[in-house]
Amino acid sequence: MEDYRNEIQKKLLPVMDTMELLSGRWRIIIMTALYLGGKMRFNEIKRNIPKITGRVLSMDLKYLEENKIVSRTVKDTAPITVEYELTAYGITLDSVFEALADWGNKHRKKIIGK
Amino acid sequence: MEDYRNEIQKKLLPVMDTMELLSGRWRIIIMTALYLGGKMRFNEIKRNIPKITGRVLSMDLKYLEENKIVSRTVKDTAPITVEYELTAYGITLDSVFEALADWGNKHRKKIIGK
Repeated sequence: MEDYRNEIQKKLLPVMDTMELLSGRWRIIIMTALYLGGKMRFNEIKRNIPKITGRVLSMDLKYLEENKIVSRTVKDTAPITVEYELTAYGITLDSVFEALADWGNKHRKKIIGK
Repeated sequence: MEDYRNEIQKKLLPVMDTMELLSGRWRIIIMTALYLGGKMRFNEIKRNIPKITGRVLSMDLKYLEENKIVSRTVKDTAPITVEYELTAYGITLDSVFEALADWGNKHRKKIIGK
């Protein structure tokens, strides 16, 4: 019984790590928007995500940048342009985005289908 | 440009639905524990999830029960036993649990490997 519990805990640890990084509703949604849309400016991301506030988007982009999931490029245009995109490391989360989208699609059909 | 944005929004909606249901770090971890361990009592779940408080576990189990992701069975033993398990519907999230675990394993290797 003790070994069995340890086995569960051992398998839970990587999921806990992932959720440590991704927890909060918006972070995964912001990443998925960048995954679908590629390089985008702040206001483009904001327009694509219904109901997100500028404050939350700004904080989460900063967090994702610090964690090497998103990169931020400042272009020397007039006025200055700031663009965000997923890093190669952020793109490795694609199977998570796909799994969430697949399940969400089935869930919608279940809810709407009734 | 307008169509392109609408396409992103359309694809984001199912992800937003899923995150509406699953957001918060602990819910996905509780579901993954039940996915790995099968039917469990409250204290068994709690022992398997490092650092979770009884209050959070209790609130999240209630939420997951209301959303038909987890079922709760009261057994007429002495003392009474209450068991929790994923419903058939909850089990359909397996690809999400697997994707998070896979990514977490790679992330651990990346962090520890350096």
